[in-house]
Amino acid sequence: MRDFLPEDVRRREHVVAVIRRVYERHGFEPLETPAVENIETLLGKYGEEGNKLIFKILKRGEQEASGQADLALRYDLTVPLARVVAAYQAKLPKFFKRYQIQPVWRADRPARGRFREFYQCDIDALGSTSPVVDVEVLSAVSEVLTELGFTDFAVRLNHRVLLTAMLESAGVAPEQHGEALVALDKLDKIGAEGVAGEFGARGISAAAFERLQKVFDAPEANLRSLLAGHTAGTSALDELAIIMGLAESTAAAGRIRLDPSLARGLSYYTGAIMEIQVPDLAGSLGGGGRYDNLVGMFLGRDVPACGFSLGLERILVVMGEREMFPKGLDAAAAEVLVTIWNEDARADALALAGDLRHAGLRVDIYPDADKIGKQLKYASSRQVPVVAVIGDEERASGKVSLKDLRSGAQQTVPRAEAADAAGRILKA
Amino acid sequence: MRDFLPEDVRRREHVVAVIRRVYERHGFEPLETPAVENIETLLGKYGEEGNKLIFKILKRGEQEASGQADLALRYDLTVPLARVVAAYQAKLPKFFKRYQIQPVWRADRPARGRFREFYQCDIDALGSTSPVVDVEVLSAVSEVLTELGFTDFAVRLNHRVLLTAMLESAGVAPEQHGEALVALDKLDKIGAEGVAGEFGARGISAAAFERLQKVFDAPEANLRSLLAGHTAGTSALDELAIIMGLAESTAAAGRIRLDPSLARGLSYYTGAIMEIQVPDLAGSLGGGGRYDNLVGMFLGRDVPACGFSLGLERILVVMGEREMFPKGLDAAAAEVLVTIWNEDARADALALAGDLRHAGLRVDIYPDADKIGKQLKYASSRQVPVVAVIGDEERASGKVSLKDLRSGAQQTVPRAEAADAAGRILKA
Repeated sequence: MRDFLPEDVRRREHVVAVIRRVYERHGFEPLETPAVENIETLLGKYGEEGNKLIFKILKRGEQEASGQADLALRYDLTVPLARVVAAYQAKLPKFFKRYQIQPVWRADRPARGRFREFYQCDIDALGSTSPVVDVEVLSAVSEVLTELGFTDFAVRLNHRVLLTAMLESAGVAPEQHGEALVALDKLDKIGAEGVAGEFGARGISAAAFERLQKVFDAPEANLRSLLAGHTAGTSALDELAIIMGLAESTAAAGRIRLDPSLARGLSYYTGAIMEIQVPDLAGSLGGGGRYDNLVGMFLGRDVPACGFSLGLERILVVMGEREMFPKGLDAAAAEVLVTIWNEDARADALALAGDLRHAGLRVDIYPDADKIGKQLKYASSRQVPVVAVIGDEERASGKVSLKDLRSGAQQTVPRAEAADAAGRILKA
Repeated sequence: MRDFLPEDVRRREHVVAVIRRVYERHGFEPLETPAVENIETLLGKYGEEGNKLIFKILKRGEQEASGQADLALRYDLTVPLARVVAAYQAKLPKFFKRYQIQPVWRADRPARGRFREFYQCDIDALGSTSPVVDVEVLSAVSEVLTELGFTDFAVRLNHRVLLTAMLESAGVAPEQHGEALVALDKLDKIGAEGVAGEFGARGISAAAFERLQKVFDAPEANLRSLLAGHTAGTSALDELAIIMGLAESTAAAGRIRLDPSLARGLSYYTGAIMEIQVPDLAGSLGGGGRYDNLVGMFLGRDVPACGFSLGLERILVVMGEREMFPKGLDAAAAEVLVTIWNEDARADALALAGDLRHAGLRVDIYPDADKIGKQLKYASSRQVPVVAVIGDEERASGKVSLKDLRSGAQQTVPRAEAADAAGRILKA
């Protein structure tokens, strides 16, 4: 797990602010849940492997010695959403659209770009099976990436039912669907030959993979004919066509590509599945889809839902490598450093700092009446662009000297004009 | 621990945004640390009682069965700061001013206004013993409260060395100082008689308390004479006079009251101590002070520091009771609901929603082509002020109807003017 020093926090806050603004413009509302959940809420929800990756919290007080856990750290934002939906159903609207930007914890082995504490930025729209909802989700995440400055992202789109239909139509036996999906999910990484090998090793016919590969290579030309006569598959494909058509009226226009090989690991999807990629990142910037049977798990009835999770850390990695952060972000903490000429000048220095702050400037004040050269050197080492000095002369005449450390230029202005003058220097 | 539904999150975000803005204007920089620390980092730092209140995390994998913990949840923001100072000393400036707004966890028995997960909003200025630093801290927290709308807060100010000097001058034996401070800390709650009783029960002379009480009742008149001849005490008092004098040039002007009875529980303070109160809250909105021996604990040398911690939950409680939140905060998630006339109108509805969003409006879209009355009813139940309709006529003529649900007024405008018109209705 990592510390975030000021520059890191500023970059994260920049991205989070954009995400939040775009999500709110799309009518999503903020939700936050506690870091700690009852252990029963989480256990069994993420499979055998997930259970092992949950951080478990020891009982307290006299029960601590038992070595047992009763609480656990949040593992994702979906199970807490399901708990909230059950707990507050009377308070929540019929169509509940929430966003949630919070850390989750997984006891994974840390690796490059993978951490044990990481932020998820989720949106989920509950309560409707309409494709308009899927389109709204795609619009929101596309607008986030566009506002962050991404111009080359692509949305891969597929459908859970379509996947099953393709496997059936290609001649994969139902009991082999799970293994086939696991293999297909690796197509990006291990290539067609690799997947064919995995199919073979699992006793799935080579002919089946050949049929699928033809579709993956040219879905427009071959998908409908593979599915001929498969009602559920054809109707899933029609649904995707509607989503893709409607998305052309939104921020997702021109971004979506039907990709029948997209499988996504999680088994809880029931409809459209989606993933966002950029050319220079092996994994995805985020993914999501429709999952109509999960959010109602604590409620005892199905709640239709479509959601998407953007990966904050990956977005930050790519934006860092591409130098996509606005320049001002990496600027100094303070825009002006007010120096202290001598002990008698401290009150004046504090008052000046107050005036500059009221004008909205970020202002630091040097703590001691050190030699002025030392104070200027400190400002320079901290990349503070402007230094304010109230020396004996300035004090006597009610003035302030402002020094632009970037150009070396200096000007002396009346105290009342100091904030305006500093603002002008900063904008120059 | 609590869930925060949309209205709660909006209120918290409003307060946090003000805190962050004011802290940044004062030259403080953001720091974030992980929720989970190594258990050795935390154990022993908060006393015997604190050790019991730390949430401890079970070892994972094969070691889970051992029942032992190797990690723990963050208990405050000061020990993590000390760890960061030791880990990144080369990267941090000589005068490191950081703010940190993150949750901490304590296995306390939950009570009214006390939670097991709660946010601390800390500022700390490291690296200088100058009273200018103490004044800057007081200025920052005073400006936060002023910008939040508090007009009646008071800052109680005392000094750790002054407290000791008063006890010595009043005739309390050094070995009784600890108990005397614990009793004095309760003066607010149990009154003078209560404290006198506690003094008596602990074998501290009644005369000693009488001398102290005279000072508490009229510090200006009696404090200097009690301290006569006590060099350290007199110099601590001089230091407070400097802080109070300089603070008059800042946002803390007129707020500070010398209060020799202020003790504050934590024993790590070495200089000025401070606490902020409002009349309608028994506890404080926050507190802090100078502690020159703590932040360097992992570094092996003293690092002078002055800090303050604002209690987010208490600020929210008082602001809620006094109805101090801006009106817009509790408004609906969306400002406009775009309805769907029929399935053919979905693309137009999505495109209109996109236009309104580009104009900065928060826009929701009804997911289905339900009866229009049902859609209007939904908007009304969600307190969305404006509804947009593209019916058959509007579609044919390239127009949009906008209905103000507050007044019932309706107007039909060209599509290209819809965003401006909706903006005007919302501002009306």
